[in-house]
Amino acid sequence: MSSNVFGKLFRVVSFGESHGSAIGVVIDGVPSRLQLDIDAIQRQLDRRRPGQSSITTPRDESDRVEVLSGLLEGMTTGSPLAFLVKNRDTRVEDYEHLKNIFRPGHADYSWYHKYGVRDYLGGGRASGRETVARVIAGSVARQLLASQDVSITGHVKEVAGIRAESFDAAEIERNAVRCADPEVAVRMIRAIEEARDAGDSVGGIVEIRATGVPAGWGEPVFEKLDALLAGALMSIGAVKGVEIGDGFEIAGKRGSEANDSIGPEGMRSNHAGGILGGVSNGADIIVRCAIKPTSSIAMEQDTVTLTGESVQIRVRGRHDPCIAPRIVPVAEAMAALVLVDAWLQQRARENAGEA
Amino acid sequence: MSSNVFGKLFRVVSFGESHGSAIGVVIDGVPSRLQLDIDAIQRQLDRRRPGQSSITTPRDESDRVEVLSGLLEGMTTGSPLAFLVKNRDTRVEDYEHLKNIFRPGHADYSWYHKYGVRDYLGGGRASGRETVARVIAGSVARQLLASQDVSITGHVKEVAGIRAESFDAAEIERNAVRCADPEVAVRMIRAIEEARDAGDSVGGIVEIRATGVPAGWGEPVFEKLDALLAGALMSIGAVKGVEIGDGFEIAGKRGSEANDSIGPEGMRSNHAGGILGGVSNGADIIVRCAIKPTSSIAMEQDTVTLTGESVQIRVRGRHDPCIAPRIVPVAEAMAALVLVDAWLQQRARENAGEA
Amino acid sequence: MSSNVFGKLFRVVSFGESHGSAIGVVIDGVPSRLQLDIDAIQRQLDRRRPGQSSITTPRDESDRVEVLSGLLEGMTTGSPLAFLVKNRDTRVEDYEHLKNIFRPGHADYSWYHKYGVRDYLGGGRASGRETVARVIAGSVARQLLASQDVSITGHVKEVAGIRAESFDAAEIERNAVRCADPEVAVRMIRAIEEARDAGDSVGGIVEIRATGVPAGWGEPVFEKLDALLAGALMSIGAVKGVEIGDGFEIAGKRGSEANDSIGPEGMRSNHAGGILGGVSNGADIIVRCAIKPTSSIAMEQDTVTLTGESVQIRVRGRHDPCIAPRIVPVAEAMAALVLVDAWLQQRARENAGEA
Amino acid sequence: MSSNVFGKLFRVVSFGESHGSAIGVVIDGVPSRLQLDIDAIQRQLDRRRPGQSSITTPRDESDRVEVLSGLLEGMTTGSPLAFLVKNRDTRVEDYEHLKNIFRPGHADYSWYHKYGVRDYLGGGRASGRETVARVIAGSVARQLLASQDVSITGHVKEVAGIRAESFDAAEIERNAVRCADPEVAVRMIRAIEEARDAGDSVGGIVEIRATGVPAGWGEPVFEKLDALLAGALMSIGAVKGVEIGDGFEIAGKRGSEANDSIGPEGMRSNHAGGILGGVSNGADIIVRCAIKPTSSIAMEQDTVTLTGESVQIRVRGRHDPCIAPRIVPVAEAMAALVLVDAWLQQRARENAGEA
Repeated sequence: MSSNVFGKLFRVVSFGESHGSAIGVVIDGVPSRLQLDIDAIQRQLDRRRPGQSSITTPRDESDRVEVLSGLLEGMTTGSPLAFLVKNRDTRVEDYEHLKNIFRPGHADYSWYHKYGVRDYLGGGRASGRETVARVIAGSVARQLLASQDVSITGHVKEVAGIRAESFDAAEIERNAVRCADPEVAVRMIRAIEEARDAGDSVGGIVEIRATGVPAGWGEPVFEKLDALLAGALMSIGAVKGVEIGDGFEIAGKRGSEANDSIGPEGMRSNHAGGILGGVSNGADIIVRCAIKPTSSIAMEQDTVTLTGESVQIRVRGRHDPCIAPRIVPVAEAMAALVLVDAWLQQRARENAGEA
Repeated sequence: MSSNVFGKLFRVVSFGESHGSAIGVVIDGVPSRLQLDIDAIQRQLDRRRPGQSSITTPRDESDRVEVLSGLLEGMTTGSPLAFLVKNRDTRVEDYEHLKNIFRPGHADYSWYHKYGVRDYLGGGRASGRETVARVIAGSVARQLLASQDVSITGHVKEVAGIRAESFDAAEIERNAVRCADPEVAVRMIRAIEEARDAGDSVGGIVEIRATGVPAGWGEPVFEKLDALLAGALMSIGAVKGVEIGDGFEIAGKRGSEANDSIGPEGMRSNHAGGILGGVSNGADIIVRCAIKPTSSIAMEQDTVTLTGESVQIRVRGRHDPCIAPRIVPVAEAMAALVLVDAWLQQRARENAGEA
Repeated sequence: MSSNVFGKLFRVVSFGESHGSAIGVVIDGVPSRLQLDIDAIQRQLDRRRPGQSSITTPRDESDRVEVLSGLLEGMTTGSPLAFLVKNRDTRVEDYEHLKNIFRPGHADYSWYHKYGVRDYLGGGRASGRETVARVIAGSVARQLLASQDVSITGHVKEVAGIRAESFDAAEIERNAVRCADPEVAVRMIRAIEEARDAGDSVGGIVEIRATGVPAGWGEPVFEKLDALLAGALMSIGAVKGVEIGDGFEIAGKRGSEANDSIGPEGMRSNHAGGILGGVSNGADIIVRCAIKPTSSIAMEQDTVTLTGESVQIRVRGRHDPCIAPRIVPVAEAMAALVLVDAWLQQRARENAGEA
Repeated sequence: MSSNVFGKLFRVVSFGESHGSAIGVVIDGVPSRLQLDIDAIQRQLDRRRPGQSSITTPRDESDRVEVLSGLLEGMTTGSPLAFLVKNRDTRVEDYEHLKNIFRPGHADYSWYHKYGVRDYLGGGRASGRETVARVIAGSVARQLLASQDVSITGHVKEVAGIRAESFDAAEIERNAVRCADPEVAVRMIRAIEEARDAGDSVGGIVEIRATGVPAGWGEPVFEKLDALLAGALMSIGAVKGVEIGDGFEIAGKRGSEANDSIGPEGMRSNHAGGILGGVSNGADIIVRCAIKPTSSIAMEQDTVTLTGESVQIRVRGRHDPCIAPRIVPVAEAMAALVLVDAWLQQRARENAGEA
């Protein structure tokens, strides 16, 4: 693995396993003299942590963030920030029965073929627990972006085929499923509970919106802002699709419907999702990702052992029947990491040719 | 711009503008002693080139590839391969009227805000003509992948809301729209022509399939194979969404439907699209991208000048009324670039710990 | 700072300050299935640690390495290895008097102008203590290189103008100055003690030799093996010069003296230091670096405060009067990091073109 | 080879062989709106080109630079700049006799073991001709740095053991050896001619000085400004050593002699060569490199064929008996590339934490 480093100027390094001693993150390239708000980081971790509601895994992790380096009297020094979150509620015994079996839908099979090792303890590095590192780094990124009046908000747009019909940002954090439509939220939660009780799981769609990004961020050609967002979001375990603006729907539209006309104030609609030619156009950046239903289910499934014998498996342990609500802060974090890097790169070159 | 370099070990550098002297590409990191098939590169360029059918732009470019460096007697030496394709049929006068106007749906507005320059000649670097470089590099990648029995095939799955109903790989290159369903192809072509005649354009969906990829390619965490594919495909100009395997549909499924069960022979279904935990699982890799309708349309649209005055515009010039068919070879190429890099990285480390 | 990441395929991330809670290192890209020898890492740290002899700083750090991630039952899994070494004997009070003063020869002045922050506690991130991270990563690299029969040995060739006259590898670790000539070692130690007693310091020259590197490692053009070694060694705080093979002496030679003639067995002499055209030629790789005298001296020096007033300073605290002996394991580590990456890259592409 | 890309934000890609059709360079990341002075680029190429004096190779290359992309009406657009210099005076027949023989001192032996290919035509990619690309890119970098009042001047400090005794910058370009001491220049030229007439070659020392760099450029820890300069200069073919400030001499000094004391105006001396802790300190940056005597000599040398038989060789062809004077513009260029990247990175983060 040599892909635990993310970003070019604001570089994030993630490490740690689900059932190891800790999850950690190093951020290299944080500008100096940022008064870092650790409570804000903790609040983001709290949004991600297990056990926060009846529809999340009962694994009990307080997920307290510790700072190891990079601060002097609460201010960044320009040196790498390093953070640790200790793992506490690990249950090695829960995974003993999986030692020699590949769980369907999980990374087990492909990673074993890659590494020749079966890190069976809670998924090891493939666990969603790795996203603790992303949320911490994302919170630092957001604190930098706040100075540019950029903010990022995510919500669950769809669960189990049930789609939000209204949008009220204030509602998002008021319900367990992070849906901006409180009435639909109730139905979503019911669908999740029903799937859970059936030993099954459901998927959903998460939408992220970044407001305040000025026109001009993003680097064509291969590192277009939408390309980086797509890669960043698709790197989250359960994500199977990413779309910008009108996304897949645009495939069925005509140019005259899909183009955003332009006025003196900027874009007059937002089919493009805030990005044209890989560069922000001043409108809100809107990205959605498709979340697959949690792979760990209690129902019986066909699989094989490490040596290739067919067996049946019921995945026990503590799992979220729908992971979409907990992906919201993770997806926000990944978007923040992409945006902060785009900002720093634009800072590097803007007006430098005329200097 | 510092994002014209793609890849880690097989590094592709793209340069050149639509109406400059040439489009070029350098590939750094090509293994030595590959007997390079230049005709194969040319055939891929021919699939991409304008003017190949009645539904593509009439711009007439023969797109002949020239080799500048990296070969000795037809064999790669390990030195950078460099290729040029000269631009011939440039019509500077076609763009004079656009000099001070931002075309809706194009990169014009956002790039101007980024760079302070309006390269109005055919879109400059934002033109789809840049993909010539990608197709060349992709063809080199495919020649390397062929040694591993990996092949990559793309086709147009949907145009203007009309979706292919059958799949026959042999049909793809037999119709102008690159649809694997010859009967639906006829309807797609009709829809494209109709939009064109109305001065409008249509979008579509392109699907790419890579066969022969063994389990074990791809690097978690941030450079998951699906994350890199998503980023690579989203970096193609008109792409607004990318999905792997079941993609957005999986959001509405249950875990018991979405998990692929495993047998001694490998995956027994392919909802995951050939990738689990960011690493190939031995099944075909399946990716789809949403293509927006061509932004250049002859219908009147509202926009502004560089100095912010409202004007109306009809985009003249030579354009494809649907770009999906010509994106097929480009998307294949991007997939090939991701896969060849994943292969080389896996080669670097496989069994190295036990050596 | 965005330069705490080193290497391409074997990527090392260093973090932590001299007087913070810990020094840490993450290694991303370690091949799986390496049975990691933690004791070997500890032994390298012991060679670097303060307080190991009468001529090193009395700061008392046991420097015990802790593994945070990346191992399952003692074997690498392919996930990032993370290590911590806690700081114990920090004396914040020693640095209070330096809070507003720039120490001559140190990073204080230039870093303050860069970051706008004065991390006065033991040099913060600019401290030699940061090399703990390098030594740990280097030891992992050496364990991988051992499988290729590559070994790396360093020694102090010169101190205070006194140069070793003989070479016996077995002597190096037997004397406090790490000189391969035991008689000259006695004189070197005396010179160091004399400088220390005068409140002054001395410099020296460290030589590193890598044996067993086969012909073919290293990547021209910009990442030549000697270029990477030069950069790696120059990145060690006190190093002010790096030379390969005959180094600066070769500038005074003729081509007929400087070229190594070649026989069927390989190079017949080694003026080139084992590298031709940036690629190893099968001979031993020989690199030397010039170490400046320790900047912290008790003698009075002219300097200024943060606000620019002239003051005089005597740097108190615990310092090595000559840092060359303790740089030996650090320089070996940096050479190991360069070589392991060159090996992995060569593994990636070797014979891949003909595959 | 995957190391033909140099730099992080100002990224240079070099391609082309000595006896291929052209040498080329792409620069990705050049800020927009720079009015590019092509004549200035040509003047730098003229300083590097062969045949410029009696002591350089008689190969006759006019080295005219052509712009392929990245400019609109003479101004950079932010798109990649691409340049070509065609090779004209190639003599393939000169190298026929070398087809199966390794030349001592050249890259032949090591590259053949790496790539399995013997590109015998003028050294292929290992030729000094590759530095055409560096000089072009360096000139663009210098034009950007000029806006910051940074200038870079190199000269030959030593040839064949003869060292300049005085320094007059105005003299450098007035003599064929680029020595700042006109009287010593005469002796140097005589020594070069004498070596040439004996069928031999001589080495030298090149010194580079950058003035105007403010305190604060350079990124600790692994990408210290001196580390990047060392790597950049060592990546030039004939360089075997690099030193900063007092360099190897500092190893014999005491701390009280080596530290630069500081006054309100900055550094009061310059033993450090303008860099402390990897970051510029406001003083001139001074770097020297050791140049080996040209490997191609007419005297008889022992070597082997590709199949390992011992043979003797006299290297015919057109060569510089001392390459130091022509390395001056190349070393200046590499220093410029390092500095422009350091500047852009500092621009990215400076004051961003407080924004």
